[in-house]
Amino acid sequence: MILHERSVSGNCYKVRLLLSHLGLRYERRELTAASRQERSAVLGDLSPSLRVPTLVLDDGRALAESNAILWYLGEGTKYVPADRFARAQMLQWQFFEQYDHEPYIAVARHWLRYRGTPVDPAALAERQEKGYLALEAMERHLEKHRYFPREHYSLADISLYGYTHAAREGGFDLDRYPALLAWLERVKGEPGHVPLSA
Amino acid sequence: MILHERSVSGNCYKVRLLLSHLGLRYERRELTAASRQERSAVLGDLSPSLRVPTLVLDDGRALAESNAILWYLGEGTKYVPADRFARAQMLQWQFFEQYDHEPYIAVARHWLRYRGTPVDPAALAERQEKGYLALEAMERHLEKHRYFPREHYSLADISLYGYTHAAREGGFDLDRYPALLAWLERVKGEPGHVPLSA
Repeated sequence: MILHERSVSGNCYKVRLLLSHLGLRYERRELTAASRQERSAVLGDLSPSLRVPTLVLDDGRALAESNAILWYLGEGTKYVPADRFARAQMLQWQFFEQYDHEPYIAVARHWLRYRGTPVDPAALAERQEKGYLALEAMERHLEKHRYFPREHYSLADISLYGYTHAAREGGFDLDRYPALLAWLERVKGEPGHVPLSA
Repeated sequence: MILHERSVSGNCYKVRLLLSHLGLRYERRELTAASRQERSAVLGDLSPSLRVPTLVLDDGRALAESNAILWYLGEGTKYVPADRFARAQMLQWQFFEQYDHEPYIAVARHWLRYRGTPVDPAALAERQEKGYLALEAMERHLEKHRYFPREHYSLADISLYGYTHAAREGGFDLDRYPALLAWLERVKGEPGHVPLSA
């Protein structure tokens, strides 16, 4: 398998983290293309949004969207619950991650750490305000449960860990959230865990 | 089952559309709460993002996020492919819908049709530009395939139809996309189809 990725991306890290848990071998290919036109040349037939991560299987079939890739790799393993309702709850948190978490926490991190141009303070404040709402929702859940969606580590934990563990780079104060901090440590202790920088 | 919803929302319509295909009975409950505090009073224990649609099952368990609700209701029916890769492809398009389509097409529609306050032309133009990229990605796919992810109507079609069929209300010119227009008609012809206004 070939993983088209940007190594600093939390979305790409999610896929590497599951691949490590599962002990699967793959080739990493860094996307250096910047413009939409350049990305189209590399990913045009592989990803509708021309984004990474994109996984190309050995038979040439391709899959985009980090959480869909996780599903493909994870289905049938212990990282996907056996119960139908629990599977839907897991997906609930993965859709939450892409809609209410990533657009604020990942974007604030990108602006502050990787973009290299001055950041508009009002725009950053807006992203951070919404990002805190996502962290608060996670904290409320983690006050009652060890993992997402319930008591066992699943794909939803991997999806949420991708950018939450790096949220300080986006200016977020994680010390407000003790249950979340304890969850970050539990995730790090899962067999096969690797850091984003691995 | 109780569906907490806003009847004009395309995200809520997705759930009603699948419930109609499946012939399932449920009670509709319109969310009239406007502020976050009011929404918290209704949805606080049910939806991490305090948003609709939120489905409450007969035993009281709740599920949020339109596409996760679709998954729960659809798993085991003909609306979810049997093949593991096809299931992941279906999810790919559903995550695409929530990340690259809904934030632009649904938001432009909301601003122009439902918000009732003046629209910032530059902000609208930016949403429309990105919305057109999503429509173009759909058109490229539909030039080769009848449905999403391939040749059979699935949850991904329901997810994408929710706001695409109403995109003109967001100022989008759909006549640029003949394959997409033909797909809209095919979806309308599926047994049990109901319009958003039903």
